Amino acid sequence: MRNPHSNGNLPKLEEGRESAEENGYGDGVILGLDGGATSTVCVCVPFFPYGDRLPEPIPILGRAVAGCTNRNSVGETAARDSLEQVISEALVQSGSDKSHVRGVCLGVSGVNHPSDQEMVQNWIRDMFPSHVKVYVQNDAIVALASGTMGKLHGCVLIAGTGCIAYGFDEDGREARASGAGPILGDWGSGYGISAQALTAVIRAHDGRGPETMLTSTILKALGLSSPDELIGWTYHPSWARMAALVPQVVSCAEAGDEISDKILVDAADDLALSVKAVVQRLGLCGKDFSRCRWKSFFPVVMVGGVLNANMKWDIEKKSQASTDTFRAQTIIPKVEPAVGAALLAMNFLTVKIDVS
Amino acid sequence: MRNPHSNGNLPKLEEGRESAEENGYGDGVILGLDGGATSTVCVCVPFFPYGDRLPEPIPILGRAVAGCTNRNSVGETAARDSLEQVISEALVQSGSDKSHVRGVCLGVSGVNHPSDQEMVQNWIRDMFPSHVKVYVQNDAIVALASGTMGKLHGCVLIAGTGCIAYGFDEDGREARASGAGPILGDWGSGYGISAQALTAVIRAHDGRGPETMLTSTILKALGLSSPDELIGWTYHPSWARMAALVPQVVSCAEAGDEISDKILVDAADDLALSVKAVVQRLGLCGKDFSRCRWKSFFPVVMVGGVLNANMKWDIEKKSQASTDTFRAQTIIPKVEPAVGAALLAMNFLTVKIDVS
Repeated sequence: MRNPHSNGNLPKLEEGRESAEENGYGDGVILGLDGGATSTVCVCVPFFPYGDRLPEPIPILGRAVAGCTNRNSVGETAARDSLEQVISEALVQSGSDKSHVRGVCLGVSGVNHPSDQEMVQNWIRDMFPSHVKVYVQNDAIVALASGTMGKLHGCVLIAGTGCIAYGFDEDGREARASGAGPILGDWGSGYGISAQALTAVIRAHDGRGPETMLTSTILKALGLSSPDELIGWTYHPSWARMAALVPQVVSCAEAGDEISDKILVDAADDLALSVKAVVQRLGLCGKDFSRCRWKSFFPVVMVGGVLNANMKWDIEKKSQASTDTFRAQTIIPKVEPAVGAALLAMNFLTVKIDVS
Repeated sequence: MRNPHSNGNLPKLEEGRESAEENGYGDGVILGLDGGATSTVCVCVPFFPYGDRLPEPIPILGRAVAGCTNRNSVGETAARDSLEQVISEALVQSGSDKSHVRGVCLGVSGVNHPSDQEMVQNWIRDMFPSHVKVYVQNDAIVALASGTMGKLHGCVLIAGTGCIAYGFDEDGREARASGAGPILGDWGSGYGISAQALTAVIRAHDGRGPETMLTSTILKALGLSSPDELIGWTYHPSWARMAALVPQVVSCAEAGDEISDKILVDAADDLALSVKAVVQRLGLCGKDFSRCRWKSFFPVVMVGGVLNANMKWDIEKKSQASTDTFRAQTIIPKVEPAVGAALLAMNFLTVKIDVS
């Protein structure tokens, strides 16, 4: 995959939603999808040639939301059904139908391997005529695109229920770190932070660890009376249900609880390490990592509830404090990841790159 | 619960299995059950008064094996059905029936709270006439009893698929540490060790951590070609399937892999910490923990595949290396936990303590 961008010269579009017929773009529509751990969003936007000047705001013709489409979590049938449903709804809303669709770009969590990608790609292909371009990406890639407005360059860090760092260099080479799920040490994720917090409660309770404010705070939040009850609670937790405890950890840290503070600092370190691993492997700082601060900035897109939770710790600050510093241009996306997916499809279609 | 033991004076029994009628004990039979994470064992033994001299070997009239009876893992219906089945089979084998049963003692994993205990107790009560004594304990307690031959004193450390430390002082006070499941930081368990090992493979793969021999060893063991495939593999792992990777970690450590060695050392530290937490809370070393080495020995029963895996590290050695040392009499049980459960029932029935 190369990193394509051209200099399209676009008229500014009117704000608000408009149908495919009314918008003045007779070139059809693009569907952008973001399939996260808890929900899936599909947007329908009019096609326009991708370039440095994009319509602002990006016109949204239709938008629909469905449940989780990670087949590892909900199974293949449910994942496929949800995808069909959310696509149909977005098309109905936009006043267009499948015959107007030029391209579909889908960012989906759980796409970690070419075989995963191929499977989802086949599902989408089956829903559309054969000329429709279908791009299936890890959800991190469309999140990056939501920050860079469709350009695949730099690094994205997502820390919500899960966490992942994903990046592209100028030549289109890609690298990722973390994003391997809760069992495989995604310690900077909301799930990871909550698991550490619950572990701290258990360790304080059984005498292995120091007392912590987390005990009363978390028991109260969950309506439990004893740490022993946490054991049953965690046997079948959803990832999102676990991650929902992050605000409790933050409030304890802010109230001066040392254990909570350490959990968050460790999480920030782990997130910084993930970004650093990607930056280093792609040479985004140049080949000599230690001289990084003299190189030009590159974008680091920050996405997810953990990063936007108004926490004490700052991933960029953390990174700069380490000896092998890198300087990133932090971007908080102005559009949602599904729009990033649509912009990515526009990019691919405009430069006619066949990544499908 | 007090800690009862009396001085029964028993004839030595012949070895081998014998029916309730033939064994010379007209006093009925006792059922001992051990319900672990992967299987449930039920033994039927003749009743004899509990005391310091026990028949050797303990006569086993019947023995049956069923699947997991942890209701948190398999659900209530399946857990209850498996219990009924394994009890019936053991009784049939022993040539006795429910009318001969004087007491049932069941050690079951997942019993962490009085409400758990009560539920399982009611299941068992419903299977027997009302005069039958029913004792439901955490599986760690019957494992302790298997090392102490029915005496509730000292500490047991179980490290198999899961891990737990559980202890009783001379007055019957009890304490536990760990045993909270994989999400809540049972890092010394087989599951915990394997999760750390898989995490190390992912971290080496994405550049966050150093290279490790674990990568090739574990991928080969699982028949996978890339660390990326581990992500799908860990989405729905059974605990036992995870824990089955421990031998790979041990072999890498023995071949000099530093990462593997650190994982095992950390696991040993965590197991030692669990024992220490229990010993300290119960004052098994006396009130001044730092003077522990001048106190008399107390039993520490070691159970589970992780501890018996012929590993480099030694929990007792580890503990002694720490400043606040305690000296334990390490016991590897000669009978299985189900027999420990039966001996415990014998103990309770002999001194007529109603712990049910």
